[in-house]
Amino acid sequence: MKKIVIIGAGNVATHIASELFNKGFEICQIFNRTLSNAVVLANKVEADAIDDASYMVKDADLYIISLSDGVINDFVNQIYFEPKLIVHTAGSIHINVLDKFKNYGVFYPLQTFTKGRKLNFKTIPICIEANNEDSKKTLQQLAEKLSNNIHDLSSEQRKQCHLAAVVANNFTNHFYSIANEILKAKGISFDIIRPLILETANKVQELSPIESQTGPAVRNNLKVIDDHKKQLPTPELEKLYSFVSQSIIDLHKK
Amino acid sequence: MKKIVIIGAGNVATHIASELFNKGFEICQIFNRTLSNAVVLANKVEADAIDDASYMVKDADLYIISLSDGVINDFVNQIYFEPKLIVHTAGSIHINVLDKFKNYGVFYPLQTFTKGRKLNFKTIPICIEANNEDSKKTLQQLAEKLSNNIHDLSSEQRKQCHLAAVVANNFTNHFYSIANEILKAKGISFDIIRPLILETANKVQELSPIESQTGPAVRNNLKVIDDHKKQLPTPELEKLYSFVSQSIIDLHKK
Repeated sequence: MKKIVIIGAGNVATHIASELFNKGFEICQIFNRTLSNAVVLANKVEADAIDDASYMVKDADLYIISLSDGVINDFVNQIYFEPKLIVHTAGSIHINVLDKFKNYGVFYPLQTFTKGRKLNFKTIPICIEANNEDSKKTLQQLAEKLSNNIHDLSSEQRKQCHLAAVVANNFTNHFYSIANEILKAKGISFDIIRPLILETANKVQELSPIESQTGPAVRNNLKVIDDHKKQLPTPELEKLYSFVSQSIIDLHKK
Repeated sequence: MKKIVIIGAGNVATHIASELFNKGFEICQIFNRTLSNAVVLANKVEADAIDDASYMVKDADLYIISLSDGVINDFVNQIYFEPKLIVHTAGSIHINVLDKFKNYGVFYPLQTFTKGRKLNFKTIPICIEANNEDSKKTLQQLAEKLSNNIHDLSSEQRKQCHLAAVVANNFTNHFYSIANEILKAKGISFDIIRPLILETANKVQELSPIESQTGPAVRNNLKVIDDHKKQLPTPELEKLYSFVSQSIIDLHKK
C-alpha cells in the first residue's frame, strides 16, 4: 500500500494521518469541507488539501473516512468512482454505510484523541472489519504497522465497544469534573486528586474493576453516604450521588 | 522522632507503616483487634503485635490511628495515658475526635490503597492538620520524609476532599465495572478498554476535566444517546446512562 487519502481533519483524522505519515505512508490528500482545517493537517503530512470531492484522486490505495457519524452518509453519496478500498473509523457506525462500494471496511482505533497530545499508538486497540477477505488482510497489515493490539470485531461488537468506551471515558471524565466542582466549592485545587485519578486507572490495568472497588457504597456504609449527600452543592448532584451509590450497592450484591 | 505505634492493620495502616519503616523510622508496635492481622504487618516492619490497648507502650513519639471511621472513637476511649502526639488518617473524620488529648492531629494520605500494590509515596498528597503549632510542625516534617505533596487543610476542607475522592475514585471505578458488564454481554474482553481508561486519567493530569470532556452527551447528540440506551442490558443501567448524560449536558451548558 502506498497512497492514502484522508477524509476529515478532526482529532481522529489528525492522529491517524500523522501516525501513518510517520510510519512512511504517502498521504496524498486531506479532504475537509472547511478547507482551512484541511490545510492545517495537510501541511503536517505533506499532502494536498481539498474541499471538493470531485477533486479527489481516484487511484489511491486506501480512503479513510474520519468524519462525524452524522455526515458519513452524505460524504459517501458524493463519491462516484470505485475506490480500491474505503473504510471509516467510527465506533458506532455499521460497516454497511459503505456497501455501495466493492471493497470496504472499518478501521476503528479505540482511544480518546485530542489534538496536540502525543499517544503511543502501539498500545491502542485497533478494531477492524471488512466485507471480504482480501480487504480484511490489507487492513490487518496496515493495523500491524501502527499497533500491537488488533481486534477483529463485527459491527455489532464494535458498537458495544463504543458504548463501553463512552461509559469508561466520557462518564468517568464527567465525574472528574464533578470532583473538581466539589473541590472548587471549598477553594481546593484539582491538583490534590490528580494522583488518585491516575492510580484508579493504573489499578485496573492489572486488577478487575470489581476487585478494585472501594469506598462507602461497596461497604454499604449508609452514614457516610448520607453525610456526603449533605455536603453536595446542588440537589442534582445529590440525586446523582444517590443514584450511582445505589448502582454500586446493587452490582456488588449480585 | 524515633518511635511510632501504628493502630490498625488494614490497607492504609499497611502502606503507611511500610513506608515509614523503609524511611528508617522505628515502628515499635502494631495494635489490631484481630491479632493475626497485627502479626502480618508487625512481621513486615519488625514491630511487636498487640491486641490489647493496655499493652501499648506509653513513650512512643507518635501514635497513628488507621482504623475504620466507625471504630476510631471506641479506640480513643480505651486510651488512658497522654501520648506525646496522636493522629488519625481518616479523610472524613473531624480532628476533634481526638480532643481529649493534649497534642493531636490528622495525617491523611489522599490515595486509594490496596495491599500488595506498590505506590510511589513521593507523589501522594498528604493532608495534615494539628491542634497546635508544635504538633503541626512535627507532622509537616514527618510528611516531608514521605512525600513532596503536602497540604495544610482544615477538617471541613479534608471532608470535602474525601467526598471528591469518592466521586473521582469509587464512582469512576464503578463505571469501569459497568463498561466491563457491557463488554461481557457481547463476549469482549475488558482488555480492549484498558488503554482508553489509562489515557482518560493521563489526559486530566495536564488538562482540566472540562477541557477533556468528549462524547455524545457534551455534543448533545441525542440520537447516539438513544441508541446507546437501547443497547444497555438492564433498565437500571438505562436509567443511569440517561441520568449521567443529562448531568454532562447540564454541566457544559453552564
